[in-house]
Amino acid sequence: MNNLASERVCLAEKLKLIDRYWNPKIVGELNGQFIKVAKFKGEFVWHHHENEDEFFLVIKGELKIKLENRELVLREGDFTIINRNIQHLPFAEEETHVLIFEPKSTVNTGQARNELTVDCEWL
Amino acid sequence: MNNLASERVCLAEKLKLIDRYWNPKIVGELNGQFIKVAKFKGEFVWHHHENEDEFFLVIKGELKIKLENRELVLREGDFTIINRNIQHLPFAEEETHVLIFEPKSTVNTGQARNELTVDCEWL
Repeated sequence: MNNLASERVCLAEKLKLIDRYWNPKIVGELNGQFIKVAKFKGEFVWHHHENEDEFFLVIKGELKIKLENRELVLREGDFTIINRNIQHLPFAEEETHVLIFEPKSTVNTGQARNELTVDCEWL
Repeated sequence: MNNLASERVCLAEKLKLIDRYWNPKIVGELNGQFIKVAKFKGEFVWHHHENEDEFFLVIKGELKIKLENRELVLREGDFTIINRNIQHLPFAEEETHVLIFEPKSTVNTGQARNELTVDCEWL
């Protein structure tokens, strides 16, 4: 449930509450989409989403996203959109803080269900 | 058309290209939503959106949003979601840079069509 409508939300305060890497938490909901924050460190898993495009904005640190034939490097204030069906592997050498916009239906590991798959909860 | 999928986009570089207040520009598209950046200064206009919830994230400066019975004050790194049908009046005492996430159908002035209404273009 979105109980945050018309309230101020401080990203830094929300990120302080996250104690696990690769475990995005919901901080807002609008138009069938979720706003999430996450801490990334290390390497995630190759995956794609069949029906969802994803937006990643770096709040702090450096996020790399490996694609099939190249690699994106995103620093603070940079974003990218990974369209549906694009294979991608996010990784971060140091702890990196990220804002994510994606449809409510999105599973973090996409089609690759494994031990990294998490149910996304409100923070 | 979204020609930015899987590319790095730097918010600060995009914002440098904006030379008019209250004129959001599109910098990304996903899941039927637009990512926009805007510079705000001064007072906008009271309005609401009948079918669209809006997300505002402050990149730089301070954004105030008057609501019917109170006022939000958002500083760098703060966001809010203004749900559909909520009357709101954005204003900024100094130049303020904002990231907006909203459905493609959104008109900047909502139901209040006037000289501030703009067709939103890609940056």
